[in-house]
Amino acid sequence: MKHSITLSSGEIARIREAVKSDATSLITYVNQVGGESDFLTFGGGEFSKTVEEEAAIIEEHRFALNRVFLIAEVGGEIAGILNVNAGAKKRLQHIGTFGITVQKKYWGEGIGSLLMEAMIDWAKANPIIRKINLEVLTDNPSAIALYKKYGFEIEGTVRRSLFLNGKFSDSYAMGLLID
Amino acid sequence: MKHSITLSSGEIARIREAVKSDATSLITYVNQVGGESDFLTFGGGEFSKTVEEEAAIIEEHRFALNRVFLIAEVGGEIAGILNVNAGAKKRLQHIGTFGITVQKKYWGEGIGSLLMEAMIDWAKANPIIRKINLEVLTDNPSAIALYKKYGFEIEGTVRRSLFLNGKFSDSYAMGLLID
Repeated sequence: MKHSITLSSGEIARIREAVKSDATSLITYVNQVGGESDFLTFGGGEFSKTVEEEAAIIEEHRFALNRVFLIAEVGGEIAGILNVNAGAKKRLQHIGTFGITVQKKYWGEGIGSLLMEAMIDWAKANPIIRKINLEVLTDNPSAIALYKKYGFEIEGTVRRSLFLNGKFSDSYAMGLLID
Repeated sequence: MKHSITLSSGEIARIREAVKSDATSLITYVNQVGGESDFLTFGGGEFSKTVEEEAAIIEEHRFALNRVFLIAEVGGEIAGILNVNAGAKKRLQHIGTFGITVQKKYWGEGIGSLLMEAMIDWAKANPIIRKINLEVLTDNPSAIALYKKYGFEIEGTVRRSLFLNGKFSDSYAMGLLID
């Protein structure tokens, strides 16, 4: 993958696949971004995987044909991640579900779009994936706009899909056909 | 749980929680029902878990407060199963997702309803669960009718949610609020 962009600082953000040795930095990263947004399924410090567990997840994504774990890197630092999960069942293996996060200090720099484009290129070249699903909170217009920009359509409104600060939130189920 | 019904044969179907020693019979059961229906996410003989893995899944359901694994038993035989899965993340732990199957020879005897009632009673008494989700193929009217009977509402239509015999099928995302 050769995806990259130049940020307003002049630094370059590049997409690459995650490797085992990223495990420690990824745990730190996820625990940090969890505290920076109320739109995620986890909060700051709530990600409790060990380095060995995280390394095993990275390896599963590398070896399963229908999964991928992408990192947007800026000067050796993780600026954002996107990982596509998929199952092994024959009837379901064509469905990828992804999650994406970007570090707050890089918001508005196009790193979300960079990750989305790399993911869609990967999916189109993939021999198994024929559908990508995601869930996004209905009150997160910038994320919804990002997904629509890349062709995702709203397929439903899932009630009570998140509980935070004593309140339930709904989410949109969005999907993209890959042909 | 005291849920039971009398079948047309005079035999009694009873609901109980799965225990570790059910692992072998459950693997046989799942591989059989997979071959009896085109509405499931797996086919006959496609369930490849070992006895140890299946026993571990049963134990996870017994020990996690927000999960349950129910068996409808007829004279020592497994006639149907229903299991509710749920995660541990604080923002998502209130959401249970379930799957249900009934052996073909017991279809039309009310075992699906028996399992649904036991599950809903369990959910209402549960301190964590506040939402139940399921997915059902849009061309499976009897299952859709069963879920509607118990208050489930259609929240969306998910495209390409199953691939079988060279064809994609859509499914409804259905949900039930638990208060």
